[in-house]
Amino acid sequence: MSTERLIYLPLGGAGEIGMNAYVYGYGPEDNERLILVDLGMTFPDMDTTPGVDLIFPDMAWLAERKDRLEAVFITHAHEDHVGAVGHFYSELGAPVYARAFTANIARRKLSEHGFAEDSVTTVSPYPESVEAGPFKVSFVPVSHSIPESSSLLIETPGGRLFHTGDFKIDHQPLVGESFDEALWKDIAKDGIKAMICDSTNVFSKNPGRSESELGGNIEALIKGAERMVVATTFASNVARVRTLAEAGERAGRSICLMGRAMRRMVEASVETGVLSSFPKVVSIEEARDIPRENLMLLVTGSQGERRAASAQLARGKFNGIEMKEGDLFLFSSKTIPGNERGVISIMNQFSEMGVDVFDDNDGFYHVSGHANRPDLEKAQELMEPQMVIPMHGEHRHLRELSKITEAAGRASVVAVNGMMIDLSGNAPRVAEYIETGRRYLDGSTQVGALDGIVRDRIRMALNGHVVVTLIVDEDDTPLGEPWCELMGLPETGRSGAPLVEVLEEDMSQFLGRAKAATLKDDDKIEQELRKIARRTALDEIGKKPEVTVIVSRIA
Amino acid sequence: MSTERLIYLPLGGAGEIGMNAYVYGYGPEDNERLILVDLGMTFPDMDTTPGVDLIFPDMAWLAERKDRLEAVFITHAHEDHVGAVGHFYSELGAPVYARAFTANIARRKLSEHGFAEDSVTTVSPYPESVEAGPFKVSFVPVSHSIPESSSLLIETPGGRLFHTGDFKIDHQPLVGESFDEALWKDIAKDGIKAMICDSTNVFSKNPGRSESELGGNIEALIKGAERMVVATTFASNVARVRTLAEAGERAGRSICLMGRAMRRMVEASVETGVLSSFPKVVSIEEARDIPRENLMLLVTGSQGERRAASAQLARGKFNGIEMKEGDLFLFSSKTIPGNERGVISIMNQFSEMGVDVFDDNDGFYHVSGHANRPDLEKAQELMEPQMVIPMHGEHRHLRELSKITEAAGRASVVAVNGMMIDLSGNAPRVAEYIETGRRYLDGSTQVGALDGIVRDRIRMALNGHVVVTLIVDEDDTPLGEPWCELMGLPETGRSGAPLVEVLEEDMSQFLGRAKAATLKDDDKIEQELRKIARRTALDEIGKKPEVTVIVSRIA
Repeated sequence: MSTERLIYLPLGGAGEIGMNAYVYGYGPEDNERLILVDLGMTFPDMDTTPGVDLIFPDMAWLAERKDRLEAVFITHAHEDHVGAVGHFYSELGAPVYARAFTANIARRKLSEHGFAEDSVTTVSPYPESVEAGPFKVSFVPVSHSIPESSSLLIETPGGRLFHTGDFKIDHQPLVGESFDEALWKDIAKDGIKAMICDSTNVFSKNPGRSESELGGNIEALIKGAERMVVATTFASNVARVRTLAEAGERAGRSICLMGRAMRRMVEASVETGVLSSFPKVVSIEEARDIPRENLMLLVTGSQGERRAASAQLARGKFNGIEMKEGDLFLFSSKTIPGNERGVISIMNQFSEMGVDVFDDNDGFYHVSGHANRPDLEKAQELMEPQMVIPMHGEHRHLRELSKITEAAGRASVVAVNGMMIDLSGNAPRVAEYIETGRRYLDGSTQVGALDGIVRDRIRMALNGHVVVTLIVDEDDTPLGEPWCELMGLPETGRSGAPLVEVLEEDMSQFLGRAKAATLKDDDKIEQELRKIARRTALDEIGKKPEVTVIVSRIA
Repeated sequence: MSTERLIYLPLGGAGEIGMNAYVYGYGPEDNERLILVDLGMTFPDMDTTPGVDLIFPDMAWLAERKDRLEAVFITHAHEDHVGAVGHFYSELGAPVYARAFTANIARRKLSEHGFAEDSVTTVSPYPESVEAGPFKVSFVPVSHSIPESSSLLIETPGGRLFHTGDFKIDHQPLVGESFDEALWKDIAKDGIKAMICDSTNVFSKNPGRSESELGGNIEALIKGAERMVVATTFASNVARVRTLAEAGERAGRSICLMGRAMRRMVEASVETGVLSSFPKVVSIEEARDIPRENLMLLVTGSQGERRAASAQLARGKFNGIEMKEGDLFLFSSKTIPGNERGVISIMNQFSEMGVDVFDDNDGFYHVSGHANRPDLEKAQELMEPQMVIPMHGEHRHLRELSKITEAAGRASVVAVNGMMIDLSGNAPRVAEYIETGRRYLDGSTQVGALDGIVRDRIRMALNGHVVVTLIVDEDDTPLGEPWCELMGLPETGRSGAPLVEVLEEDMSQFLGRAKAATLKDDDKIEQELRKIARRTALDEIGKKPEVTVIVSRIA
């Protein structure tokens, strides 16, 4: 009875940068066949998610419809696109498709969760395609900051979609395929109904610069260095790792890779044939015997991550190697908003050692992997889509790209996580709002963002924690005094007496006066003792702590 | 017996940006007469100081020597220079000197702590001076981002010092005195032994730009706006507040000040004669009746502070005024590293409302208040000091300015908090290391940074908190089972059973097997139950929580 429709539903990545997960559907309303594009994660921070290990999109909506899910396609191997693939593989139960390099990384992740190698199928690039129910999906090579990034051409009976994935326009990306204007035009020929488009760099007003612009600058920097040179970038930016290594080699340095991710990514690149050439590297053992002025280390930790090589070098030794006065450290990277404090702290630690630190101050040593505003405009001109749906951005990025699109006379909509968009007509239309959210990996368990667990942690961090224990006998008479323990609170306050004693005294007085009905009722005792603890603390130390009251009754 | 010496000792602000506090001394070794320049604070963050309200330098060293302290001089009214003056006034017991505007702000702070108006003495600028023991101190007007900023000329029998304070070279600062090259040269004539110099912008390679460059850009932006315009900047940047207000006025808008700090700063500027003219402002009540396209609000909250006007507007209404689609919001400010998340979150909330947000992307709408590298070089050339001691910077800033100084043939040293520098000779010499640190204002009490209180909060935030209570009778027999309460932890883990039950079961088993000697000993019970709680939690949920064990003995 119902007509077929073509839908787009972001479950992650739309209205934020991170944890990309985009659903497409085609078929009768509420019974569409579905595919998922990307299944990424994002990283926690102390402000909002203390103690959390990783953050995933909530995949409940899709898991409930797993019988309709045909396949999962991964555009590229960045953590915000592939990082959650192992955590949801069994929940979604659908085959995973990716190009060779991405598949290599995805397989490592799945095998960590005990899944077999063949859970990921390697796909060759366009014009090869995968049939998945009513969808025919091809991987269209595109330049980005990791090998084998791909846009997806998604052909459906309801029209052809072009999902850009993360991309930039780079005609000399050094590793992987160049941006191929002719190919885009060729694909555009048969008409693109909707382009779902990366928006993250929409506020960058100049055209993006090519990876190939960096080698000379970096070589000159290294040639000017008198002692050891250390450089960091995202390990997955294999082109940059090679740019750095080749610049080092040209400057006469032996190259050593440090940090697990750095070695793993170069390994994956070689295994999958992505890296046809790479300077000869020396082992860490060999590096220790090479004169410092002949050595260059490529290390992990461009974002100041505490456990990565750069942070460890900043704190002292890493793998037996130590930074010394006169060494040079290069951040060939951009600091992601929120990571500034960690990166700056490393810079200052190096400064204390007498190490000269260089960063991306003027764009000499780093280029972005995303399309800037003029590139986004060009991409639309090449693809000539009927409509453009911005993705991979915060709300302000989505909105800005949407405005640019509409100014150019194309239809658009700002679609954030949970907004199901009907693409069937001539313009995008909001069809439905789906409940979405975040899941936290916390230690080894997954918890919901709204479970209150993290909220309680934040409260303890802000307010401290008072634990009150009280023992009551069978006649509802308190046995002795209530007992207080403080965690994360000052020992003394206004009165100069120990806070614990002031709290215990005020509670004892209350219990002495309390009516029989109160002492019979654990909830009432708890409520009153909590109230007293907070009021007394406010008076003594000027803040209201979290309070846990434990009433034990002796039978 | 001992010869006189001239010393410099930073207690805050050297090796960090914030909480400036610099001691100078002249006299016999260990018996110098002392003055303090600035007494500022810095702000906490969730990563390192959750729940803390303000951070101060530890003034213990100086308080112990208060009989030798002649006076406190405040260079300008920024919180990182004046913010702690009320908190340490009685501890230090020395008179406070400042120019009129700064004194006005300092008095407000002191009166909040119950100190009298006359605790601050207003000083006129150079050539007027204050005699303070062996020191003769003059306030030398200098351009910065707050009115009446001053360098200090500190004349001593051991030589003349020039403490730049925060400064920039601006010949048209719009409010307050222009940078006066002739005056600097004049002061330099009699010889400057040491210049203690702002270093925070040393990595900015271009000469600083003038406040006067902004008005036209801002006016053009406002003229292009079709609905309400709202702009934020630091309230204390009175020149900017006026630049914004005047641009708004030229664009035909009524100006309304929102946020307590914004109104207070303009008030203080008018009271002290700093602001000779300011566009007529309308009250908030009047603003509500003005058509949006004729209105411009100047609001607090340029750093995304949760309780300031901009954040409240982003969340909904503030003082009955609401942002709407088509409004324009301007950040005429730089985001201080660490505040990015808060600012970006506000930008996205505005984006969701359809508000167009502009920021300092290209320097159109903001200039820094600090001297850039070429300006710092020029300052040295004007002042021709024998030595330069960098201050007001992280280690990397101090080190870089020190390198520039030495490259120009002058003596220098990187002096961080606690390094006492002897300036008596021809080059700075490290005389001693003083124990310094930070004090936290936490609610209404001060706690030490190393007291462990904040560390415990961070641990609870990262790991959650398990509270275990156990009652033991007079025969050392546990009465019933141990009781567990969780705070900030998942309810279930690997086994699927409630975590509380698994924990209680494991502890009960241990107690059943425990030897009499263990059950006699509260410390041993605590230690063992804590170990079990952590081990079981690690097994169940993959993380080791903080554990508080409370053993109650019934006598």
